[in-house]
Amino acid sequence: MKLFDGGKAPNPRRVRVFLAEKGLEVPMVRVDMAAFEHKQAGIATRNPLQRLPVLELDDGTILTESVAICRYFEELHPEPALFGRVALGKALVEMWQRRIELNLFLPVGFAFRHIHPAMKEWEVPQVPEWGEVNKPKVIDFLALLDQELAAREFAAGDQFSIADITGLIAIDFMKPARIAVPEEFSNVRRWHAALASRPSAAA
Amino acid sequence: MKLFDGGKAPNPRRVRVFLAEKGLEVPMVRVDMAAFEHKQAGIATRNPLQRLPVLELDDGTILTESVAICRYFEELHPEPALFGRVALGKALVEMWQRRIELNLFLPVGFAFRHIHPAMKEWEVPQVPEWGEVNKPKVIDFLALLDQELAAREFAAGDQFSIADITGLIAIDFMKPARIAVPEEFSNVRRWHAALASRPSAAA
Repeated sequence: MKLFDGGKAPNPRRVRVFLAEKGLEVPMVRVDMAAFEHKQAGIATRNPLQRLPVLELDDGTILTESVAICRYFEELHPEPALFGRVALGKALVEMWQRRIELNLFLPVGFAFRHIHPAMKEWEVPQVPEWGEVNKPKVIDFLALLDQELAAREFAAGDQFSIADITGLIAIDFMKPARIAVPEEFSNVRRWHAALASRPSAAA
Repeated sequence: MKLFDGGKAPNPRRVRVFLAEKGLEVPMVRVDMAAFEHKQAGIATRNPLQRLPVLELDDGTILTESVAICRYFEELHPEPALFGRVALGKALVEMWQRRIELNLFLPVGFAFRHIHPAMKEWEVPQVPEWGEVNKPKVIDFLALLDQELAAREFAAGDQFSIADITGLIAIDFMKPARIAVPEEFSNVRRWHAALASRPSAAA
């Protein structure tokens, strides 16, 4: 198999951090997104949505969507479990993975893509008003998350999971999106610092 | 357990259709979203995001996010498998569930919530330009899906899955969002008609 990787972008990083937490090494093909290589035939024929990452299996089967690629590796290599254990644990990981994705990861992405001048050719058309509307949504959700993290170590409970990976990457992406984590969210800050200090964060 | 249900809204329906496909009956508490009951204490104390559906287990544990609730029931009642079988099958269901959710379900929702006059108190502030930008995104994705469905019966392969449920509900929601499925997408139309004729679609 080989993983077509997109460098600094959030979704490619999500899969790399996941693989690092699993201790897995997968052959990578670097795709230069800054040069729009993901719009060229090498990727576009594999993923008509022209997005990265893309996993190609040895028989040519294509898997896209970062969380789907992660789930494939979870099924092949169940330990350490990053999608939770037993019915309720798996459901709680899914719940927090989705809460963080829909209320943090996506809004941060909208704020970045619809406002940042460097995204003008990427997000056509940019709707700056939509970008601005998403900034307070990010802060509102961080307030909720801060209360939740007062009572536990990780997003979905006492065990690290894919929900934490999505959270780490969303918060790191707040920097280019020019949204600051408010000082008073001390639990979010403690959580993010712990995630950022794991070796996987460098992936 | 009991399921706090929100009637016509897309996410509550997603769980009801899923339960119908599983042949499961779960005690329901009807919440009148038109009267904003989901913003009142009964729901807001259970889900600070004030969204439905909400599943409350007998020990008081709360599960939110429709796909997380569905996954809980999948784990408890594996047959019929609606999240796929074996590693690759599960990954392909996750891939199509996410592709349909991110490129169809969400954009249809944005078009509805940011344009429809009835949503003025629900989506604050409405950004009509953002709603309009999403309409061609919906059509672009349906074009891709139409090509895919030329070669198979269901979204993720030869078996019905949660990806089809998300697709059914997204396409049904195009009506209030005032987006038509173009006549020429005959595979999408065949697929939607087949899904809409299943008994679960009435749930």
